[in-house]
Amino acid sequence: MWGIIATWRMAYEGIKKAEETLASGGMASDAIEAAIIAVEDYPYYKSVGYGGLPNEEGLVELDAAYMDGDNFDIGAVAGATNVKNPISVAKKLSEDTFNIFLVGNGVAKYAQKEGFEIKNMLTKRASKLYAKRVKEIHEKNLSPYDGHDTVGMVALDEAGKMVSATSTSGLFMKKTGRIGDSAISGSGFYVDSEIGGATATGLGEDLMKGCISYEIVRLMGDGMSPMEASEHAVNTFIDKLKRRKGKAGAFSVVAMNKEGEWGVATNVEFSFVVATKNQEATIYLAYPQEDGHAKIEVASEEWLLAYETRIKKPVE
Amino acid sequence: MWGIIATWRMAYEGIKKAEETLASGGMASDAIEAAIIAVEDYPYYKSVGYGGLPNEEGLVELDAAYMDGDNFDIGAVAGATNVKNPISVAKKLSEDTFNIFLVGNGVAKYAQKEGFEIKNMLTKRASKLYAKRVKEIHEKNLSPYDGHDTVGMVALDEAGKMVSATSTSGLFMKKTGRIGDSAISGSGFYVDSEIGGATATGLGEDLMKGCISYEIVRLMGDGMSPMEASEHAVNTFIDKLKRRKGKAGAFSVVAMNKEGEWGVATNVEFSFVVATKNQEATIYLAYPQEDGHAKIEVASEEWLLAYETRIKKPVE
Repeated sequence: MWGIIATWRMAYEGIKKAEETLASGGMASDAIEAAIIAVEDYPYYKSVGYGGLPNEEGLVELDAAYMDGDNFDIGAVAGATNVKNPISVAKKLSEDTFNIFLVGNGVAKYAQKEGFEIKNMLTKRASKLYAKRVKEIHEKNLSPYDGHDTVGMVALDEAGKMVSATSTSGLFMKKTGRIGDSAISGSGFYVDSEIGGATATGLGEDLMKGCISYEIVRLMGDGMSPMEASEHAVNTFIDKLKRRKGKAGAFSVVAMNKEGEWGVATNVEFSFVVATKNQEATIYLAYPQEDGHAKIEVASEEWLLAYETRIKKPVE
Repeated sequence: MWGIIATWRMAYEGIKKAEETLASGGMASDAIEAAIIAVEDYPYYKSVGYGGLPNEEGLVELDAAYMDGDNFDIGAVAGATNVKNPISVAKKLSEDTFNIFLVGNGVAKYAQKEGFEIKNMLTKRASKLYAKRVKEIHEKNLSPYDGHDTVGMVALDEAGKMVSATSTSGLFMKKTGRIGDSAISGSGFYVDSEIGGATATGLGEDLMKGCISYEIVRLMGDGMSPMEASEHAVNTFIDKLKRRKGKAGAFSVVAMNKEGEWGVATNVEFSFVVATKNQEATIYLAYPQEDGHAKIEVASEEWLLAYETRIKKPVE
């Protein structure tokens, strides 16, 4: 069996590439890196990599992580500036014993020394969206924070190896140096090749309160299906947060086990992408329901067209 | 009941202060912050705060975190430079909904704006130790990495509130921007006032592979004592790492539950400090044993004197 699952519609083009690699017996590590790079490189995805929305100072700061489910090796970067592909830096760091998680200026320094491509990650479009938002915040007295869609993936290859990876520009208009859950193992991602993996997207500040990805993998290890584990972990933690804190932010997770079975849970409308040996790359929509089970539908042509139009809409 | 437990001998003076606060009905949040500040401010503790050992460039970069076990609010800083008390910045951040985890330059920027004290955290002694180490590395072809003692604490107050906090300068000679587990929820610390809390010290790169603090709290929630939960989580994960990766770094954890009972587990010689309503502040030593249970002894006068001499020994 092989398979890959990812958060959000934006993962689709990358998942198509990964599908080819995995179907021809390629490695999960290569497939997931290429898939994340496809999202990082595409300028119209405004919450990941090139074209990602900037922080409150107008500077693009990126977070990414990579985890190997065979040996638990992790590499992560956070608050990275001017690095073309944060995921590749994270993956390289995962090979080391020490210094596997770098933040701030340390990331670009390391990336430069190691020969990674350095690039100004701010696009004209992102710059315009920033200027527009600054104006709106001043004029309408809005909260500065908006949007936090991380691309997160879990992949399984024919050899039985599982990996997980994430990449994000984080919260639009975040404070300089703010990081969310995406680079945090156990919260933004976790994977164990003998069980399965999970990855999360949503309000990082709340996701890291529950170690949600670790918990999903643990529940799968206890015998739950990826769907049961995702729903149980998310619903339990949202209930706990509501009871103890009064509210819970947006939470969406995807999971896959070592059999290539998958699951999803969310408390907001959420798109995701799956490809396995049994199923070609498909974009799904999940809608939260009262009973705690998401309603899952294949994304319609109409939805996909509206998405395409929305992400490319000129910025006025 | 009230209680507080902390990693390493260096916590003792802080724990004495916390003991007074907690014994007179004070809040765990105040007690733990004051206790961590005492460690951060003492110049001879070379792995936390002022006097902490610098990174490979000779710059002191600090990590700290604070967690509220009532509502899971978390605040964290990593790679912080020129901030006198990282723990106080982390605690302040925990009051916000967004931007609760800041890294790199973002920390000093925030601290400045919020009126926290800015200070060059490099002491003459730390600078000499750095110069000496650079020379040794060159002459003897040593590995640059050495020392990574985080002060981590879990506290319970008479009102039943539990909190956890950590502070560290991280790995001596680390790469610029390297962060470990101390600022990472679930790995370096976790606390739930309805169950208990745990905090870890050791090789952060390995600790974050297992979400060890979250797992200890979860096991206490399932009914284990702090000692059983600490031993089970640590031993299980060390075995898993050895099997899957071939080796495991240094791991030491302390835990306390809502009854004020405590536990410890370690795979290296490890000192820790406990004070509860039933027991005045005591420095213990834990020695790992073949059977997976640490041998625990009250630190002898001799050990304490040798410690005092060692930390103040002139740097040649």
